[in-house]
Amino acid sequence: MNFDEFGELAGKLIQENHAKQALQALNKQQKLFKTLLSQRLLPKEGYSDQQIEALLSLFASMDTNNYENHIGIGEREGRVYSNLVMKRHFHLSHGIGRSGELTSNQPKAAGSSMILQLTNYLVNHALQIAGCKNVKKSIVVPMCTGMTLSLCLRTLANDTKQPNKKYVIWPRIDQQSVLKSIDTAGLAPLVIENLVNEDGSIEADITGIEKKIQQVGAENILCVLSTTSCFAPRVPDDVFEIGKICHKYQIGHIVNNAYGVQSKIIMEKINKAIASSKSTITCFVQSTDKNFMVPVGGAIVASGGECEEFVDKVSKLYAGRANMSPILDLFITLLSMGANRWKELLSEREDLFQYFINKFRTNETKNSNAAENTESSSIDTSSTNSSNTSLDHPLITGSNSRNHISFALSLNMSKEQALKLGGRLFYRNCTGPRVVLKEAKKNVVGIDFLGYGSHTNQYPHHYITLACAIGIQQCEIDSFVQMFFKEISTLTTK
Amino acid sequence: MNFDEFGELAGKLIQENHAKQALQALNKQQKLFKTLLSQRLLPKEGYSDQQIEALLSLFASMDTNNYENHIGIGEREGRVYSNLVMKRHFHLSHGIGRSGELTSNQPKAAGSSMILQLTNYLVNHALQIAGCKNVKKSIVVPMCTGMTLSLCLRTLANDTKQPNKKYVIWPRIDQQSVLKSIDTAGLAPLVIENLVNEDGSIEADITGIEKKIQQVGAENILCVLSTTSCFAPRVPDDVFEIGKICHKYQIGHIVNNAYGVQSKIIMEKINKAIASSKSTITCFVQSTDKNFMVPVGGAIVASGGECEEFVDKVSKLYAGRANMSPILDLFITLLSMGANRWKELLSEREDLFQYFINKFRTNETKNSNAAENTESSSIDTSSTNSSNTSLDHPLITGSNSRNHISFALSLNMSKEQALKLGGRLFYRNCTGPRVVLKEAKKNVVGIDFLGYGSHTNQYPHHYITLACAIGIQQCEIDSFVQMFFKEISTLTTK
Amino acid sequence: MNFDEFGELAGKLIQENHAKQALQALNKQQKLFKTLLSQRLLPKEGYSDQQIEALLSLFASMDTNNYENHIGIGEREGRVYSNLVMKRHFHLSHGIGRSGELTSNQPKAAGSSMILQLTNYLVNHALQIAGCKNVKKSIVVPMCTGMTLSLCLRTLANDTKQPNKKYVIWPRIDQQSVLKSIDTAGLAPLVIENLVNEDGSIEADITGIEKKIQQVGAENILCVLSTTSCFAPRVPDDVFEIGKICHKYQIGHIVNNAYGVQSKIIMEKINKAIASSKSTITCFVQSTDKNFMVPVGGAIVASGGECEEFVDKVSKLYAGRANMSPILDLFITLLSMGANRWKELLSEREDLFQYFINKFRTNETKNSNAAENTESSSIDTSSTNSSNTSLDHPLITGSNSRNHISFALSLNMSKEQALKLGGRLFYRNCTGPRVVLKEAKKNVVGIDFLGYGSHTNQYPHHYITLACAIGIQQCEIDSFVQMFFKEISTLTTK
Amino acid sequence: MNFDEFGELAGKLIQENHAKQALQALNKQQKLFKTLLSQRLLPKEGYSDQQIEALLSLFASMDTNNYENHIGIGEREGRVYSNLVMKRHFHLSHGIGRSGELTSNQPKAAGSSMILQLTNYLVNHALQIAGCKNVKKSIVVPMCTGMTLSLCLRTLANDTKQPNKKYVIWPRIDQQSVLKSIDTAGLAPLVIENLVNEDGSIEADITGIEKKIQQVGAENILCVLSTTSCFAPRVPDDVFEIGKICHKYQIGHIVNNAYGVQSKIIMEKINKAIASSKSTITCFVQSTDKNFMVPVGGAIVASGGECEEFVDKVSKLYAGRANMSPILDLFITLLSMGANRWKELLSEREDLFQYFINKFRTNETKNSNAAENTESSSIDTSSTNSSNTSLDHPLITGSNSRNHISFALSLNMSKEQALKLGGRLFYRNCTGPRVVLKEAKKNVVGIDFLGYGSHTNQYPHHYITLACAIGIQQCEIDSFVQMFFKEISTLTTK
Repeated sequence: MNFDEFGELAGKLIQENHAKQALQALNKQQKLFKTLLSQRLLPKEGYSDQQIEALLSLFASMDTNNYENHIGIGEREGRVYSNLVMKRHFHLSHGIGRSGELTSNQPKAAGSSMILQLTNYLVNHALQIAGCKNVKKSIVVPMCTGMTLSLCLRTLANDTKQPNKKYVIWPRIDQQSVLKSIDTAGLAPLVIENLVNEDGSIEADITGIEKKIQQVGAENILCVLSTTSCFAPRVPDDVFEIGKICHKYQIGHIVNNAYGVQSKIIMEKINKAIASSKSTITCFVQSTDKNFMVPVGGAIVASGGECEEFVDKVSKLYAGRANMSPILDLFITLLSMGANRWKELLSEREDLFQYFINKFRTNETKNSNAAENTESSSIDTSSTNSSNTSLDHPLITGSNSRNHISFALSLNMSKEQALKLGGRLFYRNCTGPRVVLKEAKKNVVGIDFLGYGSHTNQYPHHYITLACAIGIQQCEIDSFVQMFFKEISTLTTK
Repeated sequence: MNFDEFGELAGKLIQENHAKQALQALNKQQKLFKTLLSQRLLPKEGYSDQQIEALLSLFASMDTNNYENHIGIGEREGRVYSNLVMKRHFHLSHGIGRSGELTSNQPKAAGSSMILQLTNYLVNHALQIAGCKNVKKSIVVPMCTGMTLSLCLRTLANDTKQPNKKYVIWPRIDQQSVLKSIDTAGLAPLVIENLVNEDGSIEADITGIEKKIQQVGAENILCVLSTTSCFAPRVPDDVFEIGKICHKYQIGHIVNNAYGVQSKIIMEKINKAIASSKSTITCFVQSTDKNFMVPVGGAIVASGGECEEFVDKVSKLYAGRANMSPILDLFITLLSMGANRWKELLSEREDLFQYFINKFRTNETKNSNAAENTESSSIDTSSTNSSNTSLDHPLITGSNSRNHISFALSLNMSKEQALKLGGRLFYRNCTGPRVVLKEAKKNVVGIDFLGYGSHTNQYPHHYITLACAIGIQQCEIDSFVQMFFKEISTLTTK
Repeated sequence: MNFDEFGELAGKLIQENHAKQALQALNKQQKLFKTLLSQRLLPKEGYSDQQIEALLSLFASMDTNNYENHIGIGEREGRVYSNLVMKRHFHLSHGIGRSGELTSNQPKAAGSSMILQLTNYLVNHALQIAGCKNVKKSIVVPMCTGMTLSLCLRTLANDTKQPNKKYVIWPRIDQQSVLKSIDTAGLAPLVIENLVNEDGSIEADITGIEKKIQQVGAENILCVLSTTSCFAPRVPDDVFEIGKICHKYQIGHIVNNAYGVQSKIIMEKINKAIASSKSTITCFVQSTDKNFMVPVGGAIVASGGECEEFVDKVSKLYAGRANMSPILDLFITLLSMGANRWKELLSEREDLFQYFINKFRTNETKNSNAAENTESSSIDTSSTNSSNTSLDHPLITGSNSRNHISFALSLNMSKEQALKLGGRLFYRNCTGPRVVLKEAKKNVVGIDFLGYGSHTNQYPHHYITLACAIGIQQCEIDSFVQMFFKEISTLTTK
Repeated sequence: MNFDEFGELAGKLIQENHAKQALQALNKQQKLFKTLLSQRLLPKEGYSDQQIEALLSLFASMDTNNYENHIGIGEREGRVYSNLVMKRHFHLSHGIGRSGELTSNQPKAAGSSMILQLTNYLVNHALQIAGCKNVKKSIVVPMCTGMTLSLCLRTLANDTKQPNKKYVIWPRIDQQSVLKSIDTAGLAPLVIENLVNEDGSIEADITGIEKKIQQVGAENILCVLSTTSCFAPRVPDDVFEIGKICHKYQIGHIVNNAYGVQSKIIMEKINKAIASSKSTITCFVQSTDKNFMVPVGGAIVASGGECEEFVDKVSKLYAGRANMSPILDLFITLLSMGANRWKELLSEREDLFQYFINKFRTNETKNSNAAENTESSSIDTSSTNSSNTSLDHPLITGSNSRNHISFALSLNMSKEQALKLGGRLFYRNCTGPRVVLKEAKKNVVGIDFLGYGSHTNQYPHHYITLACAIGIQQCEIDSFVQMFFKEISTLTTK
């Protein structure tokens, strides 16, 4: 890429030395882009919006719908009626992939195809930075995590070519779309009930998984669908140990890592399984929006080790040309962040997670004093980290827990009060906290669950679970804690 | 919605009479929006971009991520890192639906939810205008047509609760993603080979469908997957007749109407089946981008008559919160068009289709004269519409054909020449025409096809197929025809 | 400009043949830009938005504020706080010119400087196309027409270096900002009252101008400030004849051509004066928004013939670095139009002007019939073009008039009715028509005017004046005419 | 403003409780806007982009060009050809003011008029926060500082109605556009040479001003044009003392406060003069871009005390309807900042100014060590603040100086080396530092200056002057200092 002729012409329009200096800048910018194309890694420092727009403009110029004097005699020519729509897509209208394959080049859209390829490389790099150093291939699928899990399950099912392998072993996690993804794939779940630990944490019953395999027969089991990102007091599945069982019985292992990218501990655990020859992870799936601060819309399928090629099979099963929007969002965002900011965001979140938990510890004294006055303290965090932690205490899972994204507080109040608390927080513009009642029931895809929401049939408390997700601001935490104690106090004094 | 207080304050900042006049304008705009919310129909006249942005701004203000002093304590709070990304989504970042259902309200995003509901209503109205008066429910699915067909097939399969119903009868159409959609759904296709008519047109073998049902057993057959939008010389399936068979054997009938919305004849045929109590269409699926001039990314599932509720079941099977981008594109576009422009676009396309075909008729004389000089005329359109049309003649399917979107020209040249022609057109910025060779072979999802591309094992010609799709400009047709004859002449005189 | 290295890298990310085709497109785009830079003419066909954005992106990359790792240690470094603001300026924040001169290169902003230079060339070309073939230099000044006229007057005054030359001869035109521009320049106007012709048209008293020069003394007179764009029934000044007087007495001649670019007849008259060695036009000034459909904000100073260099002097008097916004708007717009669309817009306006006038002729019969019923016809257009046109008749100036942008209708009604008419039209979202009362009075910059608005002390009618400006739509005319007659009928029957 | 009807309709489209919650949010937003309209102060916390766009959308809906079914029959109807242009102006195309006055309501553009009024209020508040508590009226003029000074001078000249008052006393400041502004106004400057203090600082000769008035005669003098924002080693004029002289002789006093808003000390000095009945400031003028981080384009004229009404006279002299772009930029920016961020930005700049100067102190030791090796130390900052500071030392003006925006370093090197230094810094993407040579000459508007750039005929050093302007980042300072010493070292060792 050189701009010599351009420079010469510029030097006739403006002063030659200014043109020369500007040309130097243009060449530097081109060098930046070249580095991106050749290294295919997150830039160290994020791009400015101007640089991003310059690059998108370059790519848009490569798509046939933007050709000068383009003639479209097909049924799909990237025509866009509305200027507002065209502008918001940066003139990229052709989508990605071909009917043959999600990651195929789209001949009518070379620029869009390049963005797709680059995004897959950049996202792979971002996963490596997040702690999964051995991930080899990542693709962004323009569907939500649930539908993408479903596509992965189906890919695995079609790939085995054994129609009897229709069971998916699923350690219970009370989040609907995962369970539905099995149903959407035309497969059947085998629910493994969780264990409740003494400290109140809930975890997958790994020996239960193996028992189930033996009981149903490995020849009938397609895979285990494990989960790493879950709301406390449930803790992430130990994907390395589960992977060892899958390896032993030669069945698949798909990991629902929806928002696990933001936890170094989760990513390193996944990495351990991928890197090991004794533990299997067929692929792991994560949401784009939950981890990368983009609008809802995409998921990332990633794999490494022996299963590296599985990602390509997923890509090939996607039927049709796909929506580019989630890929474009991620491309812009990753360029804008750069590696350094991405690292910072990850570590800021970890710090704020500690900060958030400490806020409740800090409130202990204040609160127990307040409690003396109000007489019925609903919150007592005094002994959370002491040896005699009991389930009566609010900080069910804190910094010692194995869940590093969310934590839970027991709510020692009536069901009505607990529901009211949830409602009042929402009313006061606080979204996200979930109040979980111990006796909830729900039927999902034909299966009846007891204690739905708490991941186990009988949990001893109502509780509220709070997440500290990437991008959270300290001021949000401060406001929340203040509001929370105020509401608790109001509710319990009435 | 009144703005009285606002008007009063405005009257203190600027002259009172100007404030009053402006208030009147604001109230008119609010009335426009109220009409939209209450009638839920395409506005007669399209909105201006300013009006659209004002409405989107209103909706965006309703989503929690835009609340003043919003506190997000969940794992998914609509945070967006990049300004470029936020702006392109008009500050709507929460996606649509809940894990429970695609068309459910998203509690964190009331504005986005309203856009979703309205878009579904507007698109239903647009389908009615296009000729399918009896359509009752439409939903926009943020996946491509292929994946959406797959979701519909899976919905039907799960709904029947009969695991042996795994076969999908599929009148052959040589377009990969449809066939793949069956595979992605975990089902098995039964290919019905097409009939080649004397005039060169290719159509589905309807009696063949019934025979196959009898042979395999209706109890094993989930549905017929028929196609209305196809490249000439294949003609659209007669969905009314196929629907009658489906009704007779009580099996499902899903119609791939990818780009059929732009043909009044197709839409009326679908309508006929929907309206009849003797013909079944479970649902029909169309692409958003192919019919509504938006970027690639969405599909519309629609239904009516006895199957009206099927659309809701599809919505419920979608696992997870979905990408809003294709819905937003369609919402903006439909408001921008309005009913009047939508009708115009439809009829402009029909006129241009005739114009396009006539261009080849017009070129007859010119060309046959030219032919005398070049000695080997590759194009002879002289008798297209006369009674003795033979397959030697280029206009295989013209205005008398049953395909009203595309038409085909036979290429009386060698395979090499035909391939070269395709390449040269692409090289000259013409995209869309497909050169189809008679002896092509391909394996798709494990099935071997002969004559792949021509929808039949043995077609007597190489040919080129040309589409006249919505939004095409007359100047594109003019340029194409000129270029085409020039290339033909160059190729055949060499 | 070549993209070879880029192409090579692209060919490794996507299929080589697609990369090659895309490179060809990139090269074509670069060629387009090169043509613009070397020819400096309006492109024949307008650019697409995508092409414009690609070009702006290129230029933005040349401004120092967008340099990678830019270090700003000055008081003005192009920093922009708000993303919304940065985006709307396409990342161009440095303005144009230097303290030394409006058209100087800004060393910190090579890209902005190029846009400025190109815009001046393009606008010069647009003026040539509009009929002023001999215009040599044009600059866009980011101030309104009035302030720009003031700058031109001041430039002329400073240039003569004769402090006694403080009078500006000004054929009366009842539009405040022109008169104020003389005041703002610190000069004194000498008002020349107009002549009222028998057909009701009003024109400058050219012999009056010469008399005034003789009376006051040419040594005291800086220039004549004539006007070409005015509301009917005033007609444009004959700038050629006025120019001859200016030439004879060796005084300046500045032409206020605010919205005259859209009239071929005006532009050719200006051209005649410029081309002639016996007639002087120092410079002529026009609004950007009134002629080129951009937001309000800029003016164009143009010159040719012997006064070609005057434009540079104006540029040098501008004190400070200037706002780029009006230049950017014009640049985008001219590229978007291209020469062909610009020509079309000009001729469409001329056709619609005839159409508009004919509408009143067409309404004659209808109206005179209606009039019979309502008894007091306020509108009688029956004899407009016949020899015995009298001032009683509404179409004071029609197609035979020398005003080709606006025309006037006499209002044979009371002052109250006439005022009410104006109010009602505005109330019904019709802006632009001016109801002019014969007895209006006003003091502008210390001068008392009688009959203010009608350009003459005593005009025999109230009238309404209607403009047909560039960009007007036929539907606006249709709606207006219908509404007008309805209101007239309502007013006069009451 | 209430949205009750809207809420009702929304409650039918989506769940009622979600609609209700969203309505509450809409009402909160409306309340925010109401507060803005009624208080007319900077919001405490800045608006989000979404809120700003919502507000702009509301205002745009009030302008006639956006009316539904608008009919334009005038010569200026806000028509915009290009979508790109329309979008970047948020659909506001009518500009501001009327031919009568800059701050008049524009009847066709009520929304734009409101933005103008609000911006003037907000900017007045921002000036108060910056330290000028007694400012009463501010208007944003869409022209650069120089042209605006010219308009103010002209306003004053026209207002006095004494044509002999044509002299402007001007304490020398070597920045072209200020001097040109006098010329552009058709007035004549009387240059007052500055004093050079022992510490190297340069300041206005206040007694020289009074002497000049006595010498020329107050009856011939229009005003003093003083300057507060200047590059070190020149220090800001003492506007309070100058104002006292102006008050004594009853002449005007216009203050060029181009980028002085960012210095609390300057603003408080202006305030002192305004508040006092013994000191006159007719008005003070500042750049929008230099103080508020918007693109180049506007200036603010402000006044208080006895001269409060002068601002209105300036507004009335502006001839024509004006460009709104700089007002819009400022409106968006001020809303986006809010009072809190504005205060932060001001204090951050002050801190960084100290940081910047300290960087040179910190480098002393390092550098003097380096100097020992290179033998000819060009930089010696060792005794800057000690009593025996001599002019040989580089930090001519540091933290003890009366210039709180910039500081200067003497360059003990040859003219060629000094020039080279400037060139090399620019080449390395560093803009802003000015290398000033002692023997420079220049003619500006006919006046010959010696030592041009250094504000005095004979300055003992070459020097470099460095500004620490609002918005500067610490990393820019760090990079600069590193680069500077490297270049110095390279230059002096060669």
